[in-house]
Amino acid sequence: MNDQHITALQNLVDDKGFIQAEDARPAYDIGARGDYGHALCILRPNSTEQVSRIVSYCATHDIHIIPQSGNTGLVGGSIADDSGTQVLINLERMNKVHDIDVANASIHVDAGTRLSTANNALESNQYHIPIDLGSDPCIGGMISTNTGGSRYLKYRGMREQVMGLKAVLADKNGTIVDMLCPLHKNNTGFDTKQLFIGSCGSFGIITEAIIRVSPLLQQRASALLIPSSMSVITDLLIEIEKSFGSYLSAFEGMSKNAMRCALNHCPSLSSPFGQDDIPDYAILIEISRSWPQREAEQELDDVLESTLANLWENSPPLLDNALIGSDEKLWALRHGLSEGVQKSGTLYAFDISVKRSDIIPLRLHIETGIKAKYGNTLTLCDFGHVGDGALHCALVLDKDDPRGRDKSFEKELREWVNDQVVLEFGGSYSAEHALGRKVQDAYNKYTPAEIRQITRQIKQAIAPAPIGTVDL
Amino acid sequence: MNDQHITALQNLVDDKGFIQAEDARPAYDIGARGDYGHALCILRPNSTEQVSRIVSYCATHDIHIIPQSGNTGLVGGSIADDSGTQVLINLERMNKVHDIDVANASIHVDAGTRLSTANNALESNQYHIPIDLGSDPCIGGMISTNTGGSRYLKYRGMREQVMGLKAVLADKNGTIVDMLCPLHKNNTGFDTKQLFIGSCGSFGIITEAIIRVSPLLQQRASALLIPSSMSVITDLLIEIEKSFGSYLSAFEGMSKNAMRCALNHCPSLSSPFGQDDIPDYAILIEISRSWPQREAEQELDDVLESTLANLWENSPPLLDNALIGSDEKLWALRHGLSEGVQKSGTLYAFDISVKRSDIIPLRLHIETGIKAKYGNTLTLCDFGHVGDGALHCALVLDKDDPRGRDKSFEKELREWVNDQVVLEFGGSYSAEHALGRKVQDAYNKYTPAEIRQITRQIKQAIAPAPIGTVDL
Repeated sequence: MNDQHITALQNLVDDKGFIQAEDARPAYDIGARGDYGHALCILRPNSTEQVSRIVSYCATHDIHIIPQSGNTGLVGGSIADDSGTQVLINLERMNKVHDIDVANASIHVDAGTRLSTANNALESNQYHIPIDLGSDPCIGGMISTNTGGSRYLKYRGMREQVMGLKAVLADKNGTIVDMLCPLHKNNTGFDTKQLFIGSCGSFGIITEAIIRVSPLLQQRASALLIPSSMSVITDLLIEIEKSFGSYLSAFEGMSKNAMRCALNHCPSLSSPFGQDDIPDYAILIEISRSWPQREAEQELDDVLESTLANLWENSPPLLDNALIGSDEKLWALRHGLSEGVQKSGTLYAFDISVKRSDIIPLRLHIETGIKAKYGNTLTLCDFGHVGDGALHCALVLDKDDPRGRDKSFEKELREWVNDQVVLEFGGSYSAEHALGRKVQDAYNKYTPAEIRQITRQIKQAIAPAPIGTVDL
Repeated sequence: MNDQHITALQNLVDDKGFIQAEDARPAYDIGARGDYGHALCILRPNSTEQVSRIVSYCATHDIHIIPQSGNTGLVGGSIADDSGTQVLINLERMNKVHDIDVANASIHVDAGTRLSTANNALESNQYHIPIDLGSDPCIGGMISTNTGGSRYLKYRGMREQVMGLKAVLADKNGTIVDMLCPLHKNNTGFDTKQLFIGSCGSFGIITEAIIRVSPLLQQRASALLIPSSMSVITDLLIEIEKSFGSYLSAFEGMSKNAMRCALNHCPSLSSPFGQDDIPDYAILIEISRSWPQREAEQELDDVLESTLANLWENSPPLLDNALIGSDEKLWALRHGLSEGVQKSGTLYAFDISVKRSDIIPLRLHIETGIKAKYGNTLTLCDFGHVGDGALHCALVLDKDDPRGRDKSFEKELREWVNDQVVLEFGGSYSAEHALGRKVQDAYNKYTPAEIRQITRQIKQAIAPAPIGTVDL
């Protein structure tokens, strides 16, 4: 039966559109964090119509579809399971930049276009899609997961950039829905494209998009702030936002433990604190603007310095120290944190968020809680987008600790942390990385019953075919 | 039967919650533009639970519900029809500001809270909800209609400010859906609150909201730009955006005819052009920032002046003239345009949008078309948010022209204009004002079949009860 399906599906695409051979599979069967599965076959359609025919065939024959975009996700949202029965639809051949409309500040691309490809095409016009990421995902996946990035404070996420979409519904017709509307303002009823933003492919497959673009940043200045105590950090955030307004593009927190991991394990890094001790906590801020330096205008470094000078006069004091350094050096530390915590032991990473007012209480609560439960064997090495209320809550276990290979230890730990975040603090177990197979348990546990029911009813009504890695 | 329903509904609310007397009705039965209907009765619930019980009763007995918020809409979206069978649910008694969380930059309010009430509550903390409007609607209606406003270029619309909602689904249970999530970042599946944003009450009634707030603007500077020709206006927009970046809060177009209407009919206005002729077209720009003037920082007027100076060097020239004047005087002209065109004759107003690159071609197309169809009897007096691609396309007929009372003349005119906008230019027949009874015909004609089908399927699945003024 599977052979018959494979032949039928192969006939729906051209030669380059079909992959089944073992040696060609790893790029599609293995995810960014090493999670892997085994698809029945891998299809690489080159048009919306091909996607539609594939979806129609699969829906008709009750074959589970896994849409795959850049395969850079961190929660197993783009990989088939290991049953060998799921069909993987990869969009990498649909990578055309259709149009750049400078006057409209928009770009029209295929969903399989890499972010870097879109941004390279925009560069000569001095525009960009302002989502700042370490990886290079495709636009379709970015929309499906509502990607945020490190300048979220200034630009928000993908939802705020999407103007229009084309998508194939997960139904027996493979219905093509054209929502490719290039308008900045349009209020003509329920905005159907919202169904596809952040819903991780549960309702269908995005095939094209029109994205709003922003003028490229032309100037940046960064500073490393050492707060006078942990308790002033939210006050500091408020003051920084009021002082810099729309200049502010990042307010990132780094704990001492996270910085120590990075400085110990990334040989290229040097401590911005020189011979001094690493402080308990540091905050990296960036201000930026999208025009070149103008005569008679203060340089951005000077704006930063003179404005921060006012903060020193705050009573009670907010700052212990402030280092205005080269952007590269300060951000190298920030970008080294992920690698640092990964190399420091067995890593349990959590992508969580709470109210901004709760960020500091939450990390204290987690620190105290794991100390009570696990003594000193587990270390909190947190960092993240404090300005967005989001925390990469990294817990590191000694490399040699045998519990590092114990699945039940991990399960209990994950459940405990997520319980604190969601049940105690009203926060989110997935701030940025969206849904994938790895967070199915959390989705099941924390999604309110009425939200889950609405989501299921909508899926049943418009896109009932099995698709994606999450069971709604 | 109706009497029985009235008694039953009256029992669901307290004394203040029920209105049927003729003398108390006008505020509820008559809309902002004089459209009117006659509700079976008017209910003013004071809690989400009361809303739920009313919705449940009406849904069970197939009674059509009309949700009403501030009743400031312009397309008949909040008024009962004249059948005397629809129940109007007005939210004005649900007007509590629950909480302001400064560190989280958020405010939690009841849906019946006026924008001004929310902003007054925020003022002492130097924050606001940055939607700038002539009227004072309620938050629930603003979300339902995804209100934009005149600083859309800087802040976007309500969709971008909403963090969380509570709503009552239009079903037989009056299901309460709690989506009151105060998180800036949260990616845990389909974002159900999007169902209620911009859908004009079709799926249910918003009862509470958590809204993101922004630091108050502390400095503004405005200029009136006279483009060297109509054909350079989009280039001018591009240059202005690149020059001012996130400072830019408005780029408003005003045609000669619209300005003449205002200057002729609003006695308090004086021409910013002095003794000179009114130019063919003028563009009002505003730049703004959210912090007070700092030492060593250029004043905003100077930023405006020195930056505009560079534009003079553009070749081909973009500007004929630029007037940097008092904000009040320049904006008084802009704000006088609506009144001016209304007083100039019989007004046919269109709230349309196209790609920003099409704004100028569209207005030329409309001007040429109405001249061909109607000679010189109908005058295009357009103005609007050119930076958003939105145009208030005002057509004015001589006051004494008998066609001003001819419904078929109006119908044909409206259809012709909307056809040009939607079918010829791929634009929208409702850029800002959203849906209401008055645009039902346009909704029927221009909504793509598959979009309409999806919307209906979703309504049928989750909120099948009759509600709102638009038949999806």
